[in-house]
Amino acid sequence: MRENDLLAWFAANARRHSHVPVGIGDDMAGVVLSSNADGSGGALALLKIDQALDRVHFDLQRHTPRQAGVKAVNRCLSDCAAMACRPRAILIAVALPRDASAEMVKELFAGCESAGEKFDCPIVGGDTAVWDQRLAITVAAMGDSSAPPVRRSGAVAGDAMVLTGRVGGSILGRHLAFTPRIAEACAIHRAAAIHAMMDISDGLAQDLPRLLAASGVGAVVEANRIPIHPDAHTLARADGQTALVHALTDGEDYELLLTLASTDVPRIQALSLPVELTVIGTITTQRELILQDEHGTQQPWPRGGWEYESGKS
Amino acid sequence: MRENDLLAWFAANARRHSHVPVGIGDDMAGVVLSSNADGSGGALALLKIDQALDRVHFDLQRHTPRQAGVKAVNRCLSDCAAMACRPRAILIAVALPRDASAEMVKELFAGCESAGEKFDCPIVGGDTAVWDQRLAITVAAMGDSSAPPVRRSGAVAGDAMVLTGRVGGSILGRHLAFTPRIAEACAIHRAAAIHAMMDISDGLAQDLPRLLAASGVGAVVEANRIPIHPDAHTLARADGQTALVHALTDGEDYELLLTLASTDVPRIQALSLPVELTVIGTITTQRELILQDEHGTQQPWPRGGWEYESGKS
Repeated sequence: MRENDLLAWFAANARRHSHVPVGIGDDMAGVVLSSNADGSGGALALLKIDQALDRVHFDLQRHTPRQAGVKAVNRCLSDCAAMACRPRAILIAVALPRDASAEMVKELFAGCESAGEKFDCPIVGGDTAVWDQRLAITVAAMGDSSAPPVRRSGAVAGDAMVLTGRVGGSILGRHLAFTPRIAEACAIHRAAAIHAMMDISDGLAQDLPRLLAASGVGAVVEANRIPIHPDAHTLARADGQTALVHALTDGEDYELLLTLASTDVPRIQALSLPVELTVIGTITTQRELILQDEHGTQQPWPRGGWEYESGKS
Repeated sequence: MRENDLLAWFAANARRHSHVPVGIGDDMAGVVLSSNADGSGGALALLKIDQALDRVHFDLQRHTPRQAGVKAVNRCLSDCAAMACRPRAILIAVALPRDASAEMVKELFAGCESAGEKFDCPIVGGDTAVWDQRLAITVAAMGDSSAPPVRRSGAVAGDAMVLTGRVGGSILGRHLAFTPRIAEACAIHRAAAIHAMMDISDGLAQDLPRLLAASGVGAVVEANRIPIHPDAHTLARADGQTALVHALTDGEDYELLLTLASTDVPRIQALSLPVELTVIGTITTQRELILQDEHGTQQPWPRGGWEYESGKS
């Protein structure tokens, strides 16, 4: 069962609730909290849950419990960045292998805590259980946002499509040691209206079409503008695939893909953020995704990525 | 590493944050949400995370995925009941065994959804991942409460100690098919000031001392007033232990233990709730836990339960 299919099934089956203005399908959900009996006038809480599993997202044979904890929290906080959300609290559940030592558990939680504290976002609750299986870490985050939150669905034709940082080859180490782009997202959103945004966890090839589908638009992406990370070149030299394919398909970049009015691009470039901002393409009304080289010749979108129909929401 | 030790370590190491009035150690955490830049004047969100693991909390060899989903959500919502919290949204993360079918996943989520919908509490987000280990379900819940939320720490000398329902023997089936006492908790809290409350998941023998420790008080518990479930008698006939020991130590009752002024007891009894309310003892200033029989003779508190010193907060 593919994740897009499952998401589509959820979205189709979810009942509408008036206190849930942002439901399944975005990087976080939005839920109205209220102390009034009639449910009116409350604050909007943004919520996210995410897992990090041993031998899937990290490997305790090679990585420390602290690294696993850091990554588990940062993966979840990256979704906060994707909504320009300020995280306020995290909850941690761990399913511990039976031989886990007290020291290991403390190191794991110390990693979780250190990642949260960078954003003044404490661990406020947890659950531990022991079983005879591998370590599973689940992180839930709650945050608030300057309303309305930035969603995937707001891209409009003519928007510039902007990527933070460089992509590809994160398996060489960056997947364990990235900083969620929360500060950058909030700074950009203060400077200009972000129309749509998401974080790149499965790779541009899979994630970019999801943003287009949510917005009901298409895009022309300029292949030669994709900011390729040196790690993608390193991998390409080793395995013979192109660096561009690595950049589009490796995943675990945890960079942000956002769209905004093209006239706002100079404004956000002027912010001099510690991370590069690259315009990689333009949003179009035609619901097509076109990847073109510097001569305007169309190239195939990498395999495994373009799932426009099934991912449509 | 014992859970109480881990909790004590967390509580001792947690930094204080002004936006977290209720931190680790209660059934839910309380976090102030705010749309104001200075963090002022926001709503209080209550948060909880909880796991249900295959072969620990349920067994897919005997239970359906739907039953597992129902239990996972109800365990988390039982903590909402313990704070007299109205749950507003749940998030579900599942680590799926590699052979999980689409049908199994849908049944699991349908179980989760049905449990939440009883309380108008939708699934607003989820995460699925596949691994070669057993099924793990993690549920996070967010809710609001009529401020201030009911905590474990408010019991005072002279309070009556009240238990909902009957305890013991839940392994015969009730552990899979209980209803979180949310409606009861809210009704009681509207009728009278609940001083302290928690849900009984590890059994009265372990959980009751936790409430005393959090409140810095003791109690006299009347053994003959403990409402023993028929299932505890069934188990006692089979294994030769007393029904009282089953009632105190079996766990997974998901009933509520609460304290309130003894003069308020008639008021809550008059509510005619669909569940029994039983006064099982009295809160005392002496930080001792006394279990006495109908002749006033002191009995030993069941083994594995009384961890007053290490659980003290």
